[in-house]
Amino acid sequence: MKKIAISVGDLNGVGFEIALKAHSATRSLCEPIYCVSPSNAKNAADALGLKLNGDFNLVGQEDAIAVKPGQIDAAAGRASFDGFVQAVDLTLSGEADAVVTLPINKASWSAARLRYKGHTDYLRERFGADLIMALGCRKRYVALYTDHIPLRAVADRIDAKPLSDFLIRLYPFARTKPIGVLGLNPHGGDGGAIGDEDAIIERAIAKANKTLKLSVYEGAISPDAAFAPKALERYLFVVAMYHDQGLAPLKALFFDESINITFGLPFIRTSVDHGTAFDIAYKNQNPSPTSYQNALNAALRGLAGIKI
Amino acid sequence: MKKIAISVGDLNGVGFEIALKAHSATRSLCEPIYCVSPSNAKNAADALGLKLNGDFNLVGQEDAIAVKPGQIDAAAGRASFDGFVQAVDLTLSGEADAVVTLPINKASWSAARLRYKGHTDYLRERFGADLIMALGCRKRYVALYTDHIPLRAVADRIDAKPLSDFLIRLYPFARTKPIGVLGLNPHGGDGGAIGDEDAIIERAIAKANKTLKLSVYEGAISPDAAFAPKALERYLFVVAMYHDQGLAPLKALFFDESINITFGLPFIRTSVDHGTAFDIAYKNQNPSPTSYQNALNAALRGLAGIKI
Repeated sequence: MKKIAISVGDLNGVGFEIALKAHSATRSLCEPIYCVSPSNAKNAADALGLKLNGDFNLVGQEDAIAVKPGQIDAAAGRASFDGFVQAVDLTLSGEADAVVTLPINKASWSAARLRYKGHTDYLRERFGADLIMALGCRKRYVALYTDHIPLRAVADRIDAKPLSDFLIRLYPFARTKPIGVLGLNPHGGDGGAIGDEDAIIERAIAKANKTLKLSVYEGAISPDAAFAPKALERYLFVVAMYHDQGLAPLKALFFDESINITFGLPFIRTSVDHGTAFDIAYKNQNPSPTSYQNALNAALRGLAGIKI
Repeated sequence: MKKIAISVGDLNGVGFEIALKAHSATRSLCEPIYCVSPSNAKNAADALGLKLNGDFNLVGQEDAIAVKPGQIDAAAGRASFDGFVQAVDLTLSGEADAVVTLPINKASWSAARLRYKGHTDYLRERFGADLIMALGCRKRYVALYTDHIPLRAVADRIDAKPLSDFLIRLYPFARTKPIGVLGLNPHGGDGGAIGDEDAIIERAIAKANKTLKLSVYEGAISPDAAFAPKALERYLFVVAMYHDQGLAPLKALFFDESINITFGLPFIRTSVDHGTAFDIAYKNQNPSPTSYQNALNAALRGLAGIKI
């Protein structure tokens, strides 16, 4: 059975509750290794009024912080960072087969004076800037060409060479075709009437297909049509030029189901696609485990060599 | 019974087929006045293998062009423009109560050397630049703060004064609250970490609410959460900063149902939210009449003083 290193995320959010309540189901799929200290796990379970099963395998270094439901907290930020790094380390060293992460809180990381904005930021510093962030579910995946940058900066990043390089890098991970590439401007530029970036995107597509010697990429697709029924049927996978172009329609359609996958790491890492949900943490609201279970399943499919 | 001036759009697209097949249903709602010439209507009906009912009230000036299914054509572009202008004129003069438009083809308008890009462009020149374009259905409407401009130009348009003016202008038409206002940057700027426009949007919201003396507007909402279930439940109406921020998730969720409404005209004008669909025109594919019927119903609700 595959071993999955699980970082439970911010102790003041919904991550631990999701992991604990899903434990039996998780245990039937894989051998979970929870990267959280026994004291913190006990504190969180107590706050939930739940018990830890005997087979709840905890490997976190000893650490004991108070659970403060729904609060931004430096200690919780630090603990979630430590758990995440431990999950990565265990996987790199071969003690685990893949990493699955639950949500950290960016403000708590900032309060802990961590210099990383989030998981991906840390991974990029450690494993290289070329990592690709993809999100989605088995009905639609989206790879982001740019992610956490201001909208103002997006248009200047549309350049044929780096975009075709991105497309060439992405294909071995996506392993599906055709892949739709979204345009940048309204109606994909309306034949050049609205901005010139869509023509650049088309050149990048042609270059990538030529290099791959395969007709993988199609576009530029009008962004507002890319998640409508016809496009959804044609493209399992699309490339968005910027964060909200891909994620707003994705979350509109598949809010609970989506996961986050990082391509380009020397191991498999998937994550839930929701935040810490501080508003419902420790309130017996049963946060949805769907994204978490999908993240576990996607990691296991990846380990089994099954394509996305 | 209210009289609706209907421009059937580009004769080579699906507009005429939708209008003709929906005629009986339309007739039960209102008195439709079709702004297309008798010869052109007959040519289109012949090409569809259908007959024109005796009560199919045609008012278009005489004009006879060949139907060229799915083709960009200057004559069809000119005819669709004439029909649209006639529908507007009839409504302005009081001979009709409202305008409902079927899709024109922008390339055909361009081939006809018309200087307008589309319906809204014409209306802005004739009735003022302050017109507001809103799209949606009874589950969600979106007003666009900017529309057919390059993505590159969007961030510079985020300025507190014109945005608050837009919000103040919008409310009497939207007549619903709360209205959600989307941010500009990923995660609504993540508390200032990604761009400074979201803070400007928040100032515009505060200013608009103060002027209206009502808590109408809320935000800035993270764009990728604005169409997820919780936000969909809270906001019937949202304001998007740019075209695809609003329309990509809207079309993902409500592809067939959405309509287009122009606020700020001296009369009511609604439109379908789809294009000419040249790929299925005159192929007996029964294009969906849902958006057209919703546009008719919205116009009639507006005429009856029923809010959106």
